[in-house]
Amino acid sequence: MNIPRVVRFFAVALVGMAAWSAAFLLAADPLPSWNDSAAKQSIITFVEKTTAPGSPDFVPPARRIAAFDNDGTLWAEKPLYVQLYFALDRVKQLAPQHPEWKQMEPFAALLRGDEKTALAAGKLAILKIIMATHTGMTVEEFDQIVKDWIAQARHPVTHRLFTEMVYQPMLEVLAFLRAHGFKTYIVSGGGIEFMRPWTERVYGIPPEQVVGTSVQIRYEVRDGRPVLVRLPRLDFIDDRDGKPIGINAHVGRRPIAAFGNSDGDLQMLEWTAAEPGLRLALLVHHTDAKREWAYDRGAEKALATARSKGWTVVDMQRDWKTIYPPENK
Amino acid sequence: MNIPRVVRFFAVALVGMAAWSAAFLLAADPLPSWNDSAAKQSIITFVEKTTAPGSPDFVPPARRIAAFDNDGTLWAEKPLYVQLYFALDRVKQLAPQHPEWKQMEPFAALLRGDEKTALAAGKLAILKIIMATHTGMTVEEFDQIVKDWIAQARHPVTHRLFTEMVYQPMLEVLAFLRAHGFKTYIVSGGGIEFMRPWTERVYGIPPEQVVGTSVQIRYEVRDGRPVLVRLPRLDFIDDRDGKPIGINAHVGRRPIAAFGNSDGDLQMLEWTAAEPGLRLALLVHHTDAKREWAYDRGAEKALATARSKGWTVVDMQRDWKTIYPPENK
Repeated sequence: MNIPRVVRFFAVALVGMAAWSAAFLLAADPLPSWNDSAAKQSIITFVEKTTAPGSPDFVPPARRIAAFDNDGTLWAEKPLYVQLYFALDRVKQLAPQHPEWKQMEPFAALLRGDEKTALAAGKLAILKIIMATHTGMTVEEFDQIVKDWIAQARHPVTHRLFTEMVYQPMLEVLAFLRAHGFKTYIVSGGGIEFMRPWTERVYGIPPEQVVGTSVQIRYEVRDGRPVLVRLPRLDFIDDRDGKPIGINAHVGRRPIAAFGNSDGDLQMLEWTAAEPGLRLALLVHHTDAKREWAYDRGAEKALATARSKGWTVVDMQRDWKTIYPPENK
Repeated sequence: MNIPRVVRFFAVALVGMAAWSAAFLLAADPLPSWNDSAAKQSIITFVEKTTAPGSPDFVPPARRIAAFDNDGTLWAEKPLYVQLYFALDRVKQLAPQHPEWKQMEPFAALLRGDEKTALAAGKLAILKIIMATHTGMTVEEFDQIVKDWIAQARHPVTHRLFTEMVYQPMLEVLAFLRAHGFKTYIVSGGGIEFMRPWTERVYGIPPEQVVGTSVQIRYEVRDGRPVLVRLPRLDFIDDRDGKPIGINAHVGRRPIAAFGNSDGDLQMLEWTAAEPGLRLALLVHHTDAKREWAYDRGAEKALATARSKGWTVVDMQRDWKTIYPPENK
């Protein structure tokens, strides 16, 4: 058959483009913000081995579940958890409706601008602040309150939007995993309904893949319209033992990869790593006092376990070229 | 430009094939087991209007959430819920390890073969049976127990596998919705971990899209291996008010379509239907004493509400050509 010139031209062009794309994809670094390191290599090797057809460690797509802690693993958690800044702003905003707060701790201290005293009162004080600021409204109203706040709230030290204080190297890990058929979940001690309004935009993680701490919810009909109302009672604490339990409740499968940074993530990492087959348990170690923060406090057990079990430990200072995405000015 | 003949030939062939495929797709009936009826048409119209680009009722894929009750909506629930047959079989199987059951109700009645007396003792008796047969093991052990049972358990009247007593017309609705970018969820009063082991195989619904009633879970390390253990305490009842609450906890979005068959589904249907925008609330009405069962009991409120609000009511006897899929012999 005498193939006409125009067909031959397109055929050659197509083959050329395909070869070039393949070469480009192979050469492209999926984790460009990571320095070459054992940590980077362990992520790449894990993804290659669990997803290459014919690999002895191959995992079918349905079982490719990856769980990420949020505070300190996907975004900064110092000097305070972001959700606490939200709660403190809400106290100021709601104060006119609560004249009694002027005489009531921990609110009085907060309204005097003395956060230290307010928070030093411990877990019960923090719980009081959370309940007073996070409940009473419908879930849809709360969604809007969080969206409005997070669109403009800034970090007290860097003055960047909190949503710009996410870790660029971890955004790359999320994208790399998803490009290889992984389903990425957030599994955080933070409030599930505090995260859902923005995780899709910021991390590419939809609300149904967010697991977190929750308050009790009541179904009621308000003005003829059925709504869900947030009650001032804790329902589930998604921390420590709660993380595997929360993953089981939401996903119904054990993850094959888990990412954390503190003792609150230890059980999730242990539960993930313990299964037979290739597993990835990764701990972000905050070692960068200059570009971020350096601290081991609250992560001592997790760090010791990671070392003894040979989990991947990321040294932020050494392993990450950049911490945050470029500024959006 | 003088287009060579071979190119022209391929171009004409391609256009012809495209037109033929489009015509075929338009002509193919997505719900072949449904008789032409208002119910069938309301499903098709809803899917077309919410998914056609440019439609005033268009809903972006991320918001295409459809929630399905299970018992009586996706499979038969008579004469007893399938999960009760599982519990009764487990009582017989576990009896040798529980000699005390011979003197202890409701177990004694069950072991004498007197199910009626045992179940007539009411909710507390049923709860005792569920807790004695569904807890104490790890979630992975329970998963295997359910898989082994459902692979061979048969319905006492039809002698078909329970997994063959699913409704063929509803399997078509599930597939039709998914083909149009919907995410299909089960939202059932049944046990979440009783359903997850087989919903993917039977309905194409993966474990992370199953919402149900749960028991409390404890994380523990058994023989050096971290596991989750099922405790004999109720955690969450996914029925009535619990259905919208369960959907909110798992999905974080309000569905745009909901399917049920009883008063236990009423709040889910109301919560779904109440939002502005095109919504589908559908109630399966059991009217077919010959091919399935005919009963209104336990659905009186739902039926009355469906009629007063103009929801879609499926008359099984009139609207469904077939009830179950063809037998697998």
